[in-house]
Amino acid sequence: QNATSGVGVDQELISAVPSWNPIFVDRNFTEAEVAYCQSQPSPPASFAARWAGKEAVFKALGVSSKGAAAPMKEIEILPSSEGVPTVTLHGEAKSAADAKGIKKVLISLSHSETTAIAFAQATSS
Amino acid sequence: QNATSGVGVDQELISAVPSWNPIFVDRNFTEAEVAYCQSQPSPPASFAARWAGKEAVFKALGVSSKGAAAPMKEIEILPSSEGVPTVTLHGEAKSAADAKGIKKVLISLSHSETTAIAFAQATSS
Amino acid sequence: QNATSGVGVDQELISAVPSWNPIFVDRNFTEAEVAYCQSQPSPPASFAARWAGKEAVFKALGVSSKGAAAPMKEIEILPSSEGVPTVTLHGEAKSAADAKGIKKVLISLSHSETTAIAFAQATSS
Repeated sequence: QNATSGVGVDQELISAVPSWNPIFVDRNFTEAEVAYCQSQPSPPASFAARWAGKEAVFKALGVSSKGAAAPMKEIEILPSSEGVPTVTLHGEAKSAADAKGIKKVLISLSHSETTAIAFAQATSS
Repeated sequence: QNATSGVGVDQELISAVPSWNPIFVDRNFTEAEVAYCQSQPSPPASFAARWAGKEAVFKALGVSSKGAAAPMKEIEILPSSEGVPTVTLHGEAKSAADAKGIKKVLISLSHSETTAIAFAQATSS
Repeated sequence: QNATSGVGVDQELISAVPSWNPIFVDRNFTEAEVAYCQSQPSPPASFAARWAGKEAVFKALGVSSKGAAAPMKEIEILPSSEGVPTVTLHGEAKSAADAKGIKKVLISLSHSETTAIAFAQATSS
């Protein structure tokens, strides 16, 4: 038995995601995410896409918003060995997912010159 | 047994959704939707996101387009107690979903300064 | 038993998809797709939406990117009799999906004046 328990979509203007701000980056991205984004052709676009991804995952989890305190660092998005973006939850984000019976969150990211969009799908069983 | 029977994505320029027009609003949004959108920080953005949501749900239902006569008011999108956008179908939209064995339609909405996007997923069993 | 094995989202600037270029079109679209797009009110928008759709399907399949050699022509997107965009896989794209147990790929497309977006979902069993 396998059911989608929630979906999430988000879009961000790349210029509106302050990836030039080390406080923002350190607060919201894991070390592995930072290393990955900085290795990409356009780090600002990669940070923005990942940020949209975290927002989309947060929506797919269907938990009440905690506003600025949302633990976005606990939603980690890294490429698999095949290059597919993969979500790993930590801390409170993982607890919230576990409490809802969510086993897996699928994610896809896309960015144009100006805009990043993301889609997430949470699956429970 | 649980299966996604259809998905839908839609985007709308916020400026292109005539939420200033009471005839458009009354024809396409329920009273509860109007009250909700008008309570939000940017009513035009909220109306546009909900409009994109209705289009996305319509696509996810996989029924033939009825053009201007599509009963968008019958696709109601309101926040749950946890703030998660939730779809309720009424009238012909509900009948069409029932006829296809669709039990639930998940939705997610997002808007930037200029654009609203929505994603919907219809699940049958 | 039915499970989503991957999701994909993509966006394209309509002006950035060279649908005026017969080499690009012939390489990436089937004859039926070309005929369909050319019959639409805005062929460039239809080609761009379909192109975004192919990218989204490719992401949902979760296979390693082959860059410029990705067989986009093997991912065919045509309307069903009810007007619902429907994915048919051919050749290597079909083999890759079969190897992963993917039975069906759902797709939705949307375009504004400037931008096309697409969402795809691959389902295995």
